[in-house]
Amino acid sequence: MERRKTELTSRTLKTPKGTQDWFGLEVKLRKQIFQALSGVFECHGGQELGTPVFELRDILFSKYGEDSKLIYNLEDQGGEIYSLRYDLTVPFARWIAMKSNVTQVSRYHIAKVYRRDQPAMTRGRYREFYQCDFDIAGEYEPTIPDAEILLIATEAFQALGIKVTIKLNHRRILDGILAVAGVPDEKIRPVSSAVDKLDKVSWDEVRREMIEKKGLEDGVADEIGGFVRNRGDMRKMLTFLRSNSRLMENHDSQSGVEELNLLVSYLEAYDIADKVFFDLSLARGLDYYTGLIFEIVTALPDRTSTSESKTEEVQVGSIAAGGRYDNLVGMYGNRHVPCVRISFGFERIYTILDARRPKEKGGSQSGPEVDIDIVASGGKDDGLLLERMAYWGNSLRQPKLMQQFRAAGRVPITVILGPDELAAGNVRLKVARDKLSDAEGATETDREKNRGTIIPKDNLVVEVNRLLKQRRSGLLT
Amino acid sequence: MERRKTELTSRTLKTPKGTQDWFGLEVKLRKQIFQALSGVFECHGGQELGTPVFELRDILFSKYGEDSKLIYNLEDQGGEIYSLRYDLTVPFARWIAMKSNVTQVSRYHIAKVYRRDQPAMTRGRYREFYQCDFDIAGEYEPTIPDAEILLIATEAFQALGIKVTIKLNHRRILDGILAVAGVPDEKIRPVSSAVDKLDKVSWDEVRREMIEKKGLEDGVADEIGGFVRNRGDMRKMLTFLRSNSRLMENHDSQSGVEELNLLVSYLEAYDIADKVFFDLSLARGLDYYTGLIFEIVTALPDRTSTSESKTEEVQVGSIAAGGRYDNLVGMYGNRHVPCVRISFGFERIYTILDARRPKEKGGSQSGPEVDIDIVASGGKDDGLLLERMAYWGNSLRQPKLMQQFRAAGRVPITVILGPDELAAGNVRLKVARDKLSDAEGATETDREKNRGTIIPKDNLVVEVNRLLKQRRSGLLT
Repeated sequence: MERRKTELTSRTLKTPKGTQDWFGLEVKLRKQIFQALSGVFECHGGQELGTPVFELRDILFSKYGEDSKLIYNLEDQGGEIYSLRYDLTVPFARWIAMKSNVTQVSRYHIAKVYRRDQPAMTRGRYREFYQCDFDIAGEYEPTIPDAEILLIATEAFQALGIKVTIKLNHRRILDGILAVAGVPDEKIRPVSSAVDKLDKVSWDEVRREMIEKKGLEDGVADEIGGFVRNRGDMRKMLTFLRSNSRLMENHDSQSGVEELNLLVSYLEAYDIADKVFFDLSLARGLDYYTGLIFEIVTALPDRTSTSESKTEEVQVGSIAAGGRYDNLVGMYGNRHVPCVRISFGFERIYTILDARRPKEKGGSQSGPEVDIDIVASGGKDDGLLLERMAYWGNSLRQPKLMQQFRAAGRVPITVILGPDELAAGNVRLKVARDKLSDAEGATETDREKNRGTIIPKDNLVVEVNRLLKQRRSGLLT
Repeated sequence: MERRKTELTSRTLKTPKGTQDWFGLEVKLRKQIFQALSGVFECHGGQELGTPVFELRDILFSKYGEDSKLIYNLEDQGGEIYSLRYDLTVPFARWIAMKSNVTQVSRYHIAKVYRRDQPAMTRGRYREFYQCDFDIAGEYEPTIPDAEILLIATEAFQALGIKVTIKLNHRRILDGILAVAGVPDEKIRPVSSAVDKLDKVSWDEVRREMIEKKGLEDGVADEIGGFVRNRGDMRKMLTFLRSNSRLMENHDSQSGVEELNLLVSYLEAYDIADKVFFDLSLARGLDYYTGLIFEIVTALPDRTSTSESKTEEVQVGSIAAGGRYDNLVGMYGNRHVPCVRISFGFERIYTILDARRPKEKGGSQSGPEVDIDIVASGGKDDGLLLERMAYWGNSLRQPKLMQQFRAAGRVPITVILGPDELAAGNVRLKVARDKLSDAEGATETDREKNRGTIIPKDNLVVEVNRLLKQRRSGLLT
């Protein structure tokens, strides 16, 4: 075929904005994280689901509020109209709605999602990124699944070795606060968004946004501030809320407080109540949440005070988040299936764990792991090629035996083929550390010279397997 | 939040055409296949690469010939223009071209690719499907990587328990045959496509297509037929080709024959030459191949004859394919990096293995695996809830201990909490098979009644772990 040359040069070669390649050690760390998470998920009865990377566009739209503009669309090339998935929750709700025989299920899903957001890749913020989701769907006793979701969060970050705080709130409590303060229905969601910024900007700025941009009266804004600047221990916060009789007359707030009151008793039984921090300003962007909402951060905020205190918060953003969404599945059919979810932000977790990892020479370019190499005597790479291949291809075709021509790095076991030895029906077997070169029949001289051990070639496979077993058990390094 | 209702009903709920969801046992089998393949890949020094699901459109276009029309495009939403990846080879070539410090690498990649093809899902043909690719890139001694790729194929299907035949050809031999027969340069690729259909349709049909659609003279078509209807043992076929002096004067054919001659000696050394079947009609669609091309089928064609014989061919299509592509990386920059690849068609492999699997009641809906359940005495689900939670959340928070409220299926170990036992500092431990209910301190009466064993609650974690260890080692089922 003729060699064609396109206009592309190495300058224009790149991955799409906000995306990246993964290779070598990066993939290894990624797998370790996935394994830690799926291990916890499976302990909690999670079954894995996979869905297509795109969905019918109608299924995605209207579920994300303002964020819908961040959805990637596929071109109309005739036929159905698609968009890339924005999260794993909507595909899960679509799946549940299709499976009328599934009434209760715990499913997990680890896959990439897509958002046309402003990327900040050094802080682990991408346009193509992994979500690792666990959802409990179906009717259960109130807040028991919510408590299990928070237990899963705690166990997962324990497995990952990351110290976290769970910030939680209840959407109906927040809605009730805004209603009681006098915010009209149609402004509840926009005002929530303003309140949600309290973890990043000062109260004065949030207050100004509510008054100037959302058109609230000063007194309304101040009443909201009297609530949402409070945060702290769940029991203490619940007492604070219950003490406000006007708030307790609001149906939404009252049910939210009752739910959290039940939830905290379960969290105490699980012995994880001390990981939880009740923050009335937490709103979360997604439209579909209906009850508990939470996000998980690495910092440890001051838990002793119920007043505003943000000195210890970090700027990494949340590394997991979730909440209850009871109505999403119902939007796709006639079945009401209440759900609660947690979603782990893989890239941010990766960023934290990668920063801890001792950086090796060569970084992610380090070679593959090699157990065994087969060379010709004198170390020539091109000597006795067919004979060496015969060993690779046949006798030594065993899992974990390496067959490659230039081994990267130090190889623990080397088989050396020489014309004289082969003629006598022998091969030479050399182990990287001569003190462990204890192949059957080794002579002292052989060991001292570290030239390996001569063994009958018919014993090679048995002997190599013995050495590899030793190696795996830690005797040979 | 108000419950909104969209126009969607369960009728319009579906996955995009040619795509599917995966759940439960399906995901398990999928993982087993991925593990078998990646195990073989890693034995051959493969390092895993991950790339974004879409690429800059310019990078994809012009690499696939006629097939380019099957590429999914993303909508132009401002900024860069993207398309979904069509295979894993072009993203790999793009990656290598970007990594100027990588001169030799064996990489594997298991991920979904996208083709707007006519789906035939019962036969494992999808629009979103997995490819499992292993590529060797860099300068090596001639055909040594090609031989290793075929060795990997053999090992992988051995690991999967699927009997296969490798059909191979060499693009330059086929190009030479067509040139020698008198096909003009610009018709070489279209005529190749016609020839490639010989495994599905009769020679007469292929001949008619070449004459009527591609405009070849009768004599040219017949001369092509004299070559491409031959297939069989590599050594025999090479002798047949070498005996044609006109063909051997063609530079392309001659180099192709020399390469395959070297390759067969390596395949013999690997003891896999008998898996290989040389088929001069094999052309493969992709434009980027430059040398060896092969595809792997489950059928065992008649290998004794060099004449046309298709009685034993199956209609499943190929389950793996690949070949040498020496110029693709060079198209992205100034570096010449020869490569050879194998791509496993996961969905077809899955279809074969899934058909073999004994079908269980409930199919893929069977529940999660559960090691342990914690219930209140009397089996009440809502009894002693906080006490049971305290065990779930704290003492028994161990990997592989299940925490869920209604265990699906039979649970090997059950912890029973009763008010009397708890008051005395005890719990009851029950193992599914009473003959193995050998917890320390069990009385004969306990065992006989299969009501479990009373043990001090402080010993619970130790005892449960002991039983689980027994279970994992196969003593307990």
